[in-house]
Amino acid sequence: MRVLGIDPGLRNMGWGIIDVTGPRISHVANGICHSDATQDLAQRLLSLFDQLSDVLHRFAPDCAAVEQTFVNKDAVATLKLGQARAVALLVPAQAGLPIGEYAPNAVKKAVVGVGHAAKQQVEHMIKLQLPNVTLNGPDAVDALAIAICHSHHAQSSNRLTAALAKADARAAGSTR
Amino acid sequence: MRVLGIDPGLRNMGWGIIDVTGPRISHVANGICHSDATQDLAQRLLSLFDQLSDVLHRFAPDCAAVEQTFVNKDAVATLKLGQARAVALLVPAQAGLPIGEYAPNAVKKAVVGVGHAAKQQVEHMIKLQLPNVTLNGPDAVDALAIAICHSHHAQSSNRLTAALAKADARAAGSTR
Repeated sequence: MRVLGIDPGLRNMGWGIIDVTGPRISHVANGICHSDATQDLAQRLLSLFDQLSDVLHRFAPDCAAVEQTFVNKDAVATLKLGQARAVALLVPAQAGLPIGEYAPNAVKKAVVGVGHAAKQQVEHMIKLQLPNVTLNGPDAVDALAIAICHSHHAQSSNRLTAALAKADARAAGSTR
Repeated sequence: MRVLGIDPGLRNMGWGIIDVTGPRISHVANGICHSDATQDLAQRLLSLFDQLSDVLHRFAPDCAAVEQTFVNKDAVATLKLGQARAVALLVPAQAGLPIGEYAPNAVKKAVVGVGHAAKQQVEHMIKLQLPNVTLNGPDAVDALAIAICHSHHAQSSNRLTAALAKADARAAGSTR
């Protein structure tokens, strides 16, 4: 399974792709889509949309995971983030990919083990889990962390499905 | 010139199209793109994107105008509106249309003459300016108002361009 993680932002939208084979994960690529703050909003959103679509076409992920937006007191910042986040959701939805959404704390917990980890701890753990990775900036690190978080959730959901199927088979056997 | 006005919203996204020939405006179509509140956000944004893209293909406007978002204290509502607004900007930008953005008060001033007009006044003036129009709900009314506002601005900007060209020609004549 190939997972695309996206860290939404209007100026810098981080993306990171990992391959997941059973319990093993490996790095595929990571980077940042930029938009020019001097352009008008519609052009910036279109530019991010085109860059992210290009990432999807190049790496053909099977699913995507997007960080949930932290709503804060700065309404203007919230609005900007909302607009960038719409692009992050729209591009994989258009490609028909299932999309997971995770809160920032859930992402840190999945990667570092605690929900309030510092940025450096997250980066350290990403480097440990994806040896020889070249990280293209903090937003790409966050995007890889989101992809790893999604792989953990997908695995536990797979294990749950397998356990339920086993239990069903056992129950069916006992009534035979 | 054919103008598409858009009133962004996540549940109901109003749209209205008018033709502008010199000082005359006429109604082309209006309606509302809906998204299903029980679906997840990515699917809702994709549905709005597809519906709005369809409106563009059917009516082939020359330009678009989108209402500026009113940032309020309800951060969750601001975030939702931001995500819907990204779709409203992205679809015409993808079609290469120039996009005007207008504050709600500027729209009311253009249509009614005052910035703090009531909803009913706006609807009344729309019916006066676009005789025999059938209005498909309040969001479509707002979208037609945004299109009319844009036609006013485009006309004054045309008149300004014409006046500047005339002045330039006169200045060139006087130095000849």
